[in-house]
Formats: sequence, C-alpha cells, structure tokens
Amino acid sequence: MPLPAKATHRQTRAHNQGLVLRTLYDHGPVSRAEVARLTGLTRTTVSQLVNAFLSDGLAREVGRGPSSGGKAPILVQVDGDARHVIGLDLGERAFNGAVVNLHGEIRRTASLPVGGRNGDEALEVVYRLVDQLVGEVPGLLLGIGVGTPGIVDAGDGTIRWAVNLDWQDLPLGRLLRERFAVPTYVANDSRAAAFAEYRFAGEGASANLIAIRVGHGIGAGVVLGGELFHGDGFGAGEIGHTGIVDDGKACRCGRFGCLETVASSRAILSDATEAAEATPDSFLGRRLAAHGTLDLEAIRAGLDAGDESTRRVVVAAGRFLGAAVASLIGALNIHRIVLIGSVAALGEPWLEAVRDEAARRSLGMLGGRTRIDIGRASTDEVVLGAAALLMVRELGLVPAR
Amino acid sequence: MPLPAKATHRQTRAHNQGLVLRTLYDHGPVSRAEVARLTGLTRTTVSQLVNAFLSDGLAREVGRGPSSGGKAPILVQVDGDARHVIGLDLGERAFNGAVVNLHGEIRRTASLPVGGRNGDEALEVVYRLVDQLVGEVPGLLLGIGVGTPGIVDAGDGTIRWAVNLDWQDLPLGRLLRERFAVPTYVANDSRAAAFAEYRFAGEGASANLIAIRVGHGIGAGVVLGGELFHGDGFGAGEIGHTGIVDDGKACRCGRFGCLETVASSRAILSDATEAAEATPDSFLGRRLAAHGTLDLEAIRAGLDAGDESTRRVVVAAGRFLGAAVASLIGALNIHRIVLIGSVAALGEPWLEAVRDEAARRSLGMLGGRTRIDIGRASTDEVVLGAAALLMVRELGLVPAR
Repeated sequence: MPLPAKATHRQTRAHNQGLVLRTLYDHGPVSRAEVARLTGLTRTTVSQLVNAFLSDGLAREVGRGPSSGGKAPILVQVDGDARHVIGLDLGERAFNGAVVNLHGEIRRTASLPVGGRNGDEALEVVYRLVDQLVGEVPGLLLGIGVGTPGIVDAGDGTIRWAVNLDWQDLPLGRLLRERFAVPTYVANDSRAAAFAEYRFAGEGASANLIAIRVGHGIGAGVVLGGELFHGDGFGAGEIGHTGIVDDGKACRCGRFGCLETVASSRAILSDATEAAEATPDSFLGRRLAAHGTLDLEAIRAGLDAGDESTRRVVVAAGRFLGAAVASLIGALNIHRIVLIGSVAALGEPWLEAVRDEAARRSLGMLGGRTRIDIGRASTDEVVLGAAALLMVRELGLVPAR
Repeated sequence: MPLPAKATHRQTRAHNQGLVLRTLYDHGPVSRAEVARLTGLTRTTVSQLVNAFLSDGLAREVGRGPSSGGKAPILVQVDGDARHVIGLDLGERAFNGAVVNLHGEIRRTASLPVGGRNGDEALEVVYRLVDQLVGEVPGLLLGIGVGTPGIVDAGDGTIRWAVNLDWQDLPLGRLLRERFAVPTYVANDSRAAAFAEYRFAGEGASANLIAIRVGHGIGAGVVLGGELFHGDGFGAGEIGHTGIVDDGKACRCGRFGCLETVASSRAILSDATEAAEATPDSFLGRRLAAHGTLDLEAIRAGLDAGDESTRRVVVAAGRFLGAAVASLIGALNIHRIVLIGSVAALGEPWLEAVRDEAARRSLGMLGGRTRIDIGRASTDEVVLGAAALLMVRELGLVPAR
C-alpha cells in the first residue's frame, strides 16, 4: 500500500486556494468574512487568497453587502468571463465546438462537417475548428477540453482507439497543447456527457451517477464521489460492446451480439426498416416509401401516431438496454441512472421498457431504489462536459448553469 | 457540491498519526529517523507520535539497527499482539469465528452449527460464538468484525435483509457494540472476502479489484482505490440476483433466471444430478447411486476422471459467470478480477470457461487486458476480511499476512 504523502505547506495552500475559489464561485457575491465562515479558514488567509484572485482577474469586487453594524462588507465573486474554455465534441457526422465561460455559458459555437474523413484528415478538421474558435475567445483562454469517441487515456490525452476516425494511439492532447500552447483535457464523449449530466442531479442527490448515452453507439460514464471513474484502462462505461445476445448480429467492432446491435439507434432503425419492408401498407412502410429511409424522427412520429409496429421495435430495444442497466445496478448499486443521447429523445415508451426490464432483472432491494430517468435534452452535453473536465483540473471548478 | 473541510490542526494530527502507525506497520522494525524520511514529517513530530504508540503498547522497541556513524538507532515496530480483533463469518451451515492479531494471524478459532436456525435464535448463536471467543482473546480486544450474508449497511452495521437468516433491519453492529463494549464493523460476506483478497494483489497491482465469490450463492466485492465500494445502498457487488436468462429457473429470491440459478454450486449440483439421473451408468450416475446425493467433491472427481458429462455441466456454469464478468469489465474496466468461493475450487475447466466467455463478450481493448484468476484457497477469507475492515476503520491498518 503506497504511503499517502504528508500534508505539506504547499499542499495546504493549494487546497485552501481551491477551497476559497470554489466558495466564491458557488456562493458569490460573498464577503471575505463570509468566505472565512464557510471555509473555516482565518480571515487573514482568506484575504490573502482573495486578493491574489482579484489581481489575477479571476475574481472581482461587486459592491457592498448589507452592514451588520459596522462598515458594509465588500462583496466578491468569480468573474465568469475572466477565462474561457474551448469545448469540442468530435461527433459522428460533424465536429462541434464552443467557447464556454467559467459559468458554463456558451459564448460562441462552430461546427465543421467530417464527411467520412478519418486519420490525419480528421485531425486537420479538429485543428481548423480550434483555429476558428481561438479567434473568437474574448480575453484569456484557460484551455481546451475535448470529447471524442473511442478509448481515451484521459491522463495524457492520448486516444488509444477510435474506430470510426481510424485513430490509434493519437496523442491529441499533446498535439493540441503544443499547437495552441494551453492546457488540454481529452475524454471519451460519453464520459464527458455523463460528467455534464452529473451537474444537474438535484439538490441532495448522491455524488454517484451513471449516465448512459444511447445513439448511433452506446457508452456510459460512471461518476463516483463527484469524479469520473476511468477504470484501470480508461474504459469504464464502455458497455456498448458487451455481448448480450447469443449468436447475435454482427457488430461494427467485429464481434457479434453486442449491446449496440440491439439497443442503439442503428438497431432501432434497422429493425424498423425491416418491419417497414415487410408491411408496405403500415405506418413505417408508408414512411419508408415516402422518404426512402427511416430516421429517429420517423420513429418518434410512429410512436406519436400510436403505431403498434413502431412501438414494438422501440420497446424491444429498450428492454435490451434495461437488461444492461440491471447489470450496472447489481455491480454498482448507484441509485441515479440517467439516459441521454438521441435515442433517449424517443421518450416514454422506450423509457418505460428500460425501467421495467431493469426492475424485472434486479433484486428489489436494489432496483426498487434506483431512479432511471431521461436526462436533459441537450446537444451541447459533450462540449460542456469536456469544458467542465478541463476547468476541474485547472481550477478545481465545476461549472453549474 | 459540498465544501471539503479545511485541514484543521486536529485532522493533520490524526492524519500524521495514521501515517506513522502505518509506516511502523509496513516497514518495521524501523528507526524514528527512517520513519521521518519515509513520511516526510519532522523528527520531532515522529518522535512524539512514536512515543505515544509505545506508551499505548501499540508499538514496541526491538533493539538497535546498524549505526551510520553515530549512535546506533533504536528500532520500533507495531506489536502485532498489542490488540486482537474477533472476526466472524456467518456462513450458510455454521457460524465461524476467529481471534486475529494486528498482522492478520489467526490465534484462536471457534465454530457453531446454525442448523437452520434463523431470526433471534440465529442471533443467539452469534452471541454464544462471540462469548466463547472473547474469553480467549490474549490482551486487549480492538473490536469485532462481522461478515454476513445479505445487504448490510456497513455504516451503522444494520443488516437490512438476509433472507436465509430471516433477518430484516437487524442492528447487529449496535447489538454487539452494546453487549461487548467494543467497536464493531458489519459487512456483507462477499465484500469482506473481496477485501481480504485485495490484500494479496501482487506488487505493483492496481488499487482496484473485483472479487467474485461463487458458492451456494454468488456475490462480489468491488475494491476501488484500496477501499471497498459500497454503492448508494450498500448493494454494490450483489450480482447474484441479476436476471441473465430469459424465462429461466426460479431463484430463491422469488424471481426467475438470476445468475445464481445457472452459475452457483446449487446450479451445478442440480444440473449434474439431472445428468446423473438421465444416465445411471455414467460417472455421475454411479456416484449418485453410491452416495444418494452429489456434492462439489463429486464434481471435482468427475473432472479429474475426465468425465465429459461433468465437464459439460461445469463449463456451462462457467460460461454464464463469464457473461456476468463481461458486464463488469465493460462497466468498470478493472484489470484484476479474482474468483473465490467453493466453486472456484473446481479449478481449470471452469476457470477457462469463465475466461473464454468473458473475452468473447468483451471489447478486446478491455477484456484482453483483464486478468481473471482464481484467488487463494482459504476458508478464512470472510473472517480475515471482516477483521481487516475493522482494523482499517479503527487504526487505519490493513493487515497483510
């Protein structure tokens, strides 16, 4: 067992620095005296640290609070626009980016199509996107946070494997750091989205959360004690390629019967198309004939129209996901599970199927206390999560919105 | 996000106290100067703390080390026999207990049959067992650690639900604390065994480990960063009742198709008995006729004799467990998975089936780096794990053997 380090003077200062900045961030505008009360630090320590933040521009004075007898105290808060972060979402069809301030507010966005590019060409698209956004950062750039598909070593920012982009051992973090001369943080996109989702767990919620992102692919993020859990090889949450169907369909990973083959948007659209072709006069059949292809909007329309065949396809996919959720419940007994991604937008009949199957396959003592909900509908989750992860590492801040 | 407390003087002292005791424990016999070097604390602080341990009897001086020029330094080490812990394993057939010293050495053992008793009668057996062991503790009793089946609130030691013992919301920790006037720690038996197993991860091993205990029931323990992960409801690792077979057999939990119905020792013995009855002339058939019943020893004998029918039964059970292991790999990406319990003693053909199925159902990037092994063969794992958990909480020590 490795020896924990003793608490040195420098560590104590860094700890207290983070504590004061977080207090200004969470409670500001707030007086120095109130910060001292909230943190338990001495007024002298707090004043020294606050003054340093003021001269860095990270915090600013914003008038005086109510007097409690003596002189009215000066109030201080973090200046949300003192620094900005560039967040990137290297999505399947397009690379999206945003300039985000310290409060997690999006100031600028940009998007570039990927158009099937991969390897160095896809990397060039990343560079162009950041080039564009860097030019639009007001003031100081704190760093770049990236959410990308694949297995990512979040420690050094190397993408070990991203099959669609054909990236293998790509040191994206280092490349961006060298090119743009700012700190970078690279994480798997589902994990980044999960971290963004964690910020919206209600008051009094546990510090643990699992967010499962169901779209073209399926990936989860596990938040333990307020921090992303990466596992030993940065693959924790990679549930999309766990085999759950014996002799199942071929998966893009090269194996068979993975969760993605039965519960992703691809699985739903493939099953729906099959149903449509079998019954040309059905809702789905007519829709397919009219549009030449089916998308999740068509599925949503089928559900809204009360089409039974659409419902069957959606419920089947939801049940498969529910079985995977039951495994997570038994393994981790985390009470809050949030479903996000394009398939989650299908809403009720799908959610009910997930919940029902997860409960059916779980011990009542565990499943009965687990809340499974659909997360916020947001297409910015990866961008915001990646930006938040960078802020946590650089400043100890977790932006709420 | 809750504010982390500032580091107070008292916390610093407690931290340094634990640090010095752990250093004496892991590195002793060791000089005060060496402790100062290892911990980074000042010699004065180390001397003060060591002297306190000496007067408590927790540590003792054991002669002098080699001189490096000046006076030869006095060496100090933790006195393993300065305190003892009573560890209990409330097993299916018998309640076993042991008196364990601070080095995890078993000094005395005792066992009482349960004989189908449950409720208050079973609680009486626990009392009698502790009564007996308390009388045999040499010197000071640090506390009592208990491993029990069921869902246990390890925070306050309440057994929320232990179906076989018919215990519901039984405050076992408090009852033992009041009766024997020492600290107690109550944990689920599989989790206690997992913690014991964690201690034997080799040098350089990750601080994360999953141990799966496969016997009459199936339960796992998840160790993260050197600590047991409990989940939000103390059910993390309760994988035995996750439904994995559609329209499966009835489980003792009241539901159908749970992992236990296909991968536990009961499942193996039930399938083997079925095979034996169908083919009276087979190895299993003759064994059944001779003994009237089959046990795991018979299964082991069948494997040793190269009996194909026995092998089929064992491999089928192993494959089901492998599928559950694949789920854990995807969810947690922990590289070290250890199999323990009576079924693990079956060894090779079973282990191979678990490994093969886990690999088949996992992403190569994850499964390929996961080591799945059979743990130490020990019937004391629950006792030692429960005792270790008590020592960690009371002294910050983790006994190695």
